[in-house]
Amino acid sequence: MGMTMTQKILARHAGEDFVKAGQLIKAKLDLVLGNDITTPVAIKEFDKIGIGRVFNRDKIAIVPDHFTPNKDIKSAQQCKCVREFVKKAEIKNYFEIGQMGIEHALIPEKGLAVCGDVVIGADSHTCTYGALGAFSTGVGSTDMAAGMATGEAWFKVPPAIKFVLDGKLPKWVSGKDVILHIIGMIGVDGALYKSMEFTGKGVDELSMDDRFTISNMAIEAGAKNGIFPVDEKTVDYIRKHSKREYRVYEADEDAEYEKVIHIDLSKLRPTVAFPHIPENTRTIDDVGDIKIDQVVIGSCTNGRISDLRSAASILRGRKVNKNVRTIIFPATQAIYLQALREGIIETFVESGAVVSTPTCGPCLGGHMGILAEGERAVSTTNRNFVGRMGHVKSEVYLASPAVAAASAVMGKIASPEEVVK
Amino acid sequence: MGMTMTQKILARHAGEDFVKAGQLIKAKLDLVLGNDITTPVAIKEFDKIGIGRVFNRDKIAIVPDHFTPNKDIKSAQQCKCVREFVKKAEIKNYFEIGQMGIEHALIPEKGLAVCGDVVIGADSHTCTYGALGAFSTGVGSTDMAAGMATGEAWFKVPPAIKFVLDGKLPKWVSGKDVILHIIGMIGVDGALYKSMEFTGKGVDELSMDDRFTISNMAIEAGAKNGIFPVDEKTVDYIRKHSKREYRVYEADEDAEYEKVIHIDLSKLRPTVAFPHIPENTRTIDDVGDIKIDQVVIGSCTNGRISDLRSAASILRGRKVNKNVRTIIFPATQAIYLQALREGIIETFVESGAVVSTPTCGPCLGGHMGILAEGERAVSTTNRNFVGRMGHVKSEVYLASPAVAAASAVMGKIASPEEVVK
Repeated sequence: MGMTMTQKILARHAGEDFVKAGQLIKAKLDLVLGNDITTPVAIKEFDKIGIGRVFNRDKIAIVPDHFTPNKDIKSAQQCKCVREFVKKAEIKNYFEIGQMGIEHALIPEKGLAVCGDVVIGADSHTCTYGALGAFSTGVGSTDMAAGMATGEAWFKVPPAIKFVLDGKLPKWVSGKDVILHIIGMIGVDGALYKSMEFTGKGVDELSMDDRFTISNMAIEAGAKNGIFPVDEKTVDYIRKHSKREYRVYEADEDAEYEKVIHIDLSKLRPTVAFPHIPENTRTIDDVGDIKIDQVVIGSCTNGRISDLRSAASILRGRKVNKNVRTIIFPATQAIYLQALREGIIETFVESGAVVSTPTCGPCLGGHMGILAEGERAVSTTNRNFVGRMGHVKSEVYLASPAVAAASAVMGKIASPEEVVK
Repeated sequence: MGMTMTQKILARHAGEDFVKAGQLIKAKLDLVLGNDITTPVAIKEFDKIGIGRVFNRDKIAIVPDHFTPNKDIKSAQQCKCVREFVKKAEIKNYFEIGQMGIEHALIPEKGLAVCGDVVIGADSHTCTYGALGAFSTGVGSTDMAAGMATGEAWFKVPPAIKFVLDGKLPKWVSGKDVILHIIGMIGVDGALYKSMEFTGKGVDELSMDDRFTISNMAIEAGAKNGIFPVDEKTVDYIRKHSKREYRVYEADEDAEYEKVIHIDLSKLRPTVAFPHIPENTRTIDDVGDIKIDQVVIGSCTNGRISDLRSAASILRGRKVNKNVRTIIFPATQAIYLQALREGIIETFVESGAVVSTPTCGPCLGGHMGILAEGERAVSTTNRNFVGRMGHVKSEVYLASPAVAAASAVMGKIASPEEVVK
């Protein structure tokens, strides 16, 4: 019996020839990640360990992205605590305001994760780097602390579900629609503690940004990780962003999968997850008449340059509905600059949207776009739980940047096809 | 005995031929202004009055600029309350996210205040429109409520101090330095409940943006208002932004002034107000070595296009110090767009600054740049009281955009001359 792609990466990092689903292993870490919310907790735990120094100052990344620029004194104190720790521990990969971005967009952009890596991050969407062919997963702050101290982490080797993608995405259908479709199909616990391994000829057709979006939301199906095979696009991306050596792993032909699910990308439609759970999906054809108060475009899920291009292609020459606060968050300063140079930021401002600094902000009810009672948002973020973006009686509808932009123009959940004829 | 410029405007709006300092009058209002903090309180008071409708739906402006995009559920609920009131009362001048800006930059830009007006606003920096030759002053939310209901307000006619400006500002010295110099000279109660009337040939040399900055901070000397004579620059500005009729008032030659203060603009130096009071000023030559953690460029005081141009001229081709979080707030969406088209936003991002949506944010410790314990900021805002921008043990140094930009580059309070040689 062979190993899945995930199992092969884990085996190698555990110093084993073979691992199987359910086995407990200790694996070496290539990167340990934290943000301004989770790192202060990890620092407390790290201090308890009492060894005083991190395992490798190059292999830790800390990104203060959630409540920055600081929303209040408490968040300012949290960031101060992080900053002092970074200085004391001489951690190399720390990204202050101006150099920073949303962690899961920034880490690949800065070349800090490459294929074949084992990455843990004290943030649930750390699974994003599976798009690069890395094993990457979210952990708690205590695991982050132990990881910073030892450079290792315990894992239970996950079983896997194989998703065989075929065909090519139609116009206005993106990676976000793929993952929302999958979560709608298998449910939010459909891949509980399993690997989601994406394969098939359809993968070739997906841009790296699409893959990041898909891997990013693997956790929303309960998965331990969501991983893509390494192809030319992956290698191009890694060569462009990183100087690190990398290693390509492929699943064995006789790897065991709990399930194999075939998806014809050409059949997908723009998809929306209704409140209050990401599995509550409908295609755009079945959304009905849902008026909205706010649109959020951005986040670690959909704040990359192709996301902004997609939204801009709809907003160009059009105005957002006057009743819809439209807030756009480029995910990193580099993406912001690229969008600015392409005229995309100008398009957004001309359309009546505002463009924020990179922050997780409204996604987690943090800041920069919190909803009041009874308000509805279409958002390109990743979770729509009760109260996620504000008041417990507010509603979040998850969608792609194209659907979000179309909805901003129409004042209700709308298909890009209704706007761009 | 004649009247000051302020007294003539007030007399006219009170239906009187003559008013004198100390007299109580009831004046008709040309504009009643509120924001997202003060309007909800005013709405409660307005509802108590029980007349159910506002005096004139064209003469009320409401600008949700303090905690927007909403920082939390409470601020979201406040904005919702305002939005519902605006809808019910059919108030015309309401500026939602995307159309909005910081109120005191937005009101002149939208042509809602012109020379000769009497304006009250439930925000202390409503005095800004004195730059246009209007009588304009901050009031409490109860006065705002009464103003919305009746279109009138009670005033005690203020006495005046005359500031005779001569000469021309040297390079790197701006309106901000003028008003900081004045406050340093007369103190934060130096003009308590008085008009500050600016006159003299030096006025001709001041741009409208300089005048807005100077009038904006009249309240920081305790003044009731700070007013400029109407000249060609004023009329050009008003014609460009407003379709309203306007009336020009001039002080009588025999108007009575409590004091006359002469200022030679050509002698001024870049000026910084040290913690924790705006009168605690030093010229840039006497600041010493003060390391900083944050720079804020923007606000109702200094977020206009010439402020951004000034900062950009220093940041262009340079990097901000890696220890300084540099946050820039264009004051309105129109200013943001103008700056974007001039390449200024690109300059900022390339330098390592971040550019926020228009908000009062950090100025009042609201959001988007709150300071932690022991942190220091150079800020182009208007107040540096204890805890104003965050922790009670943080410090705010008030300065011009040029000094703020130079300080961002140097990592300590610095003169533009140290950077641009």
